[in-house]
Amino acid sequence: MSATAGQVIRCKAAVAWEAGKPLVIEEVEVEPPQKMEVRLKILFTSLCHTDVCFWEAKGQTALFPRIYGHEAGGIVESVGEGVTDLQPGDHVLPVFTGECKECHHCKSSESNMCSLLRINTDRGVMISDGKTRFSKNGQPIYHFLGTSTFSEYTVTHVGCVAKINPAAPLDKVCLLSCGIATGLGATLNVAKPTKGSTVAIFGLGAVGLAAAEGARISGASRIIGVDLNANRFNEAKKFGVTEFVNPKDYDKPVQQVIAEMTDGGVDRSLECTGNVNLMISAFECVHDGWGVAVLVGVPNKDDAFKTHPINLLNERTLKGTFFGNYKPRSDIPSVVEKYMNKELELDKFITHQVSFSEINKAFDLMLGGQGLRCIIHMEN
Amino acid sequence: MSATAGQVIRCKAAVAWEAGKPLVIEEVEVEPPQKMEVRLKILFTSLCHTDVCFWEAKGQTALFPRIYGHEAGGIVESVGEGVTDLQPGDHVLPVFTGECKECHHCKSSESNMCSLLRINTDRGVMISDGKTRFSKNGQPIYHFLGTSTFSEYTVTHVGCVAKINPAAPLDKVCLLSCGIATGLGATLNVAKPTKGSTVAIFGLGAVGLAAAEGARISGASRIIGVDLNANRFNEAKKFGVTEFVNPKDYDKPVQQVIAEMTDGGVDRSLECTGNVNLMISAFECVHDGWGVAVLVGVPNKDDAFKTHPINLLNERTLKGTFFGNYKPRSDIPSVVEKYMNKELELDKFITHQVSFSEINKAFDLMLGGQGLRCIIHMEN
Repeated sequence: MSATAGQVIRCKAAVAWEAGKPLVIEEVEVEPPQKMEVRLKILFTSLCHTDVCFWEAKGQTALFPRIYGHEAGGIVESVGEGVTDLQPGDHVLPVFTGECKECHHCKSSESNMCSLLRINTDRGVMISDGKTRFSKNGQPIYHFLGTSTFSEYTVTHVGCVAKINPAAPLDKVCLLSCGIATGLGATLNVAKPTKGSTVAIFGLGAVGLAAAEGARISGASRIIGVDLNANRFNEAKKFGVTEFVNPKDYDKPVQQVIAEMTDGGVDRSLECTGNVNLMISAFECVHDGWGVAVLVGVPNKDDAFKTHPINLLNERTLKGTFFGNYKPRSDIPSVVEKYMNKELELDKFITHQVSFSEINKAFDLMLGGQGLRCIIHMEN
Repeated sequence: MSATAGQVIRCKAAVAWEAGKPLVIEEVEVEPPQKMEVRLKILFTSLCHTDVCFWEAKGQTALFPRIYGHEAGGIVESVGEGVTDLQPGDHVLPVFTGECKECHHCKSSESNMCSLLRINTDRGVMISDGKTRFSKNGQPIYHFLGTSTFSEYTVTHVGCVAKINPAAPLDKVCLLSCGIATGLGATLNVAKPTKGSTVAIFGLGAVGLAAAEGARISGASRIIGVDLNANRFNEAKKFGVTEFVNPKDYDKPVQQVIAEMTDGGVDRSLECTGNVNLMISAFECVHDGWGVAVLVGVPNKDDAFKTHPINLLNERTLKGTFFGNYKPRSDIPSVVEKYMNKELELDKFITHQVSFSEINKAFDLMLGGQGLRCIIHMEN
């Protein structure tokens, strides 16, 4: 039992007071975990595009003040009533979507879309009592994705916490709590390319490169990267990308370019941008008879995916995935093990490091399209 | 070696001289099989909707005179040069699509869309020399789908012939050369419902009921049939359909009706009409997290399949199939065995029988929407 268990903790958190304005490091109060909740000490967090999207709040529900952050690694400080499979000191990754282990989805071997704890970007409170666990001078501060890792301490539902190998370096494996697991799982769990196959990756950001890393691990012989930014190809080579296609270089649809490069189409494709036109391209560039296209990037609300149905009838498969089809608590520990046994490479995703006090630099880097992942050190 | 081997055979065939006009039983000349071809004596054939479509030639290339027919059972009369795995006397099912065993598709375990012998509805000649093997008084008569089974004798490419158990009754298993295998395989090979699952079938014609038969064999607990014709439900019960939904009975989309009936959606759906709106409904009625929709019915040329991409991102899968993903030569013999060991029921698909001289009655029955399959006896 930690000395702080059951008590309010005063600590530093990066609070977003207004949409698009720099975060402010504030001293906040973090309440003890309630029933089925845990309080975590966050050691490392990183910035994911989703944080930036909701902080900008363009087209999203604006909920302020709020503590963002959902890619992180930390240690359990204390647990609430009813929590039996976690205890203080456990090394964990908080995850933006959960696994209650009791709903229809959790009981299905095919789904990771837990009915109780599925991602909810609009909710800023804990589900048990509809209240926040953060406040400053009595003013509640909203949670984000049930994780709010831009705080030295945070409270999450137990179902959103993956207990991992304590020997794993949290400053690396924290990346597995969102984007990298999403891209990696999309390839390993959903697209499932076989050894020697050809794979196209649309979008060479962190998620797309994690999908490429999955293709590399699977033994794909050709990994074709598609991006509008030609500078990304050099970086992408480290992730096994063997060829690069910039749609701007052609006056025909990119799916046609890829089909011509690959004698009719790739075996697997992964769309990691969320652009609906690229989703269509990603689908139409897979080979008839056996091609599988996997949608990873999140679309806009008004998008319509459109294709001629004969493209489907010709034995192509179109699937979508969420968090790489990983169940957070059941599966993420084994992904950490893939890193530990050197099957999975994570270090190459980390292009920047900042101290917590410099967290706004991480936002600037992402807004400027620089680098892949910036690790934020909470204790420096 | 049969007495007729190497010689022209004069026999009866039902010739379509003009689009939409009754077939005429004529005495035609059937040439011997050339290299990699076989000549078959057809014993039983049945009428499939595709025959009617191309005979009507509304929107399709009109190629006349032509001999239709592609669901049949027969016996090898003679074989051409290079044919080693068939010999006179073998019991066979001709198939409208082939398996050369040498192309990329045939070598893939996932595809049955042979590059050499894939269905071609516009071709009316043999691929080796671009000529017909049928003629009357010197006038060539076109082939259909490489099978032309509305003739006492026909010539096909060896890759379009499945050799089956000679003990199997050809007047029943002839149904496995097209529609019934298409629906059955769509369920067993592509949708793959597990025991106890819920399955929706759109369209309760022969193909849809064959898909339902696949669901019954798979142990589905609920099989929901969707059709605009309420009369079809009674027939469908014989095929394991447990519930019936007529979209005309509701003022909301049928996908919503089905989702409400099934706590969020069915586990698997199969679209067997080719109507693009029903394809969309079939996709959107499957459960998020694990639902799989399979498109079986052939769309029109100008159709667009359209859905919000979030329906895919929520872990739904959309696939299409062709001939139930069966490879004609490798797989169809084992489907015949499923009938022989009473796992698969075929007799219930046969609602009518006519003699060859009455073949136009089979067309009338199909045009009138009566029955499922009409077996045409060539020898009576």
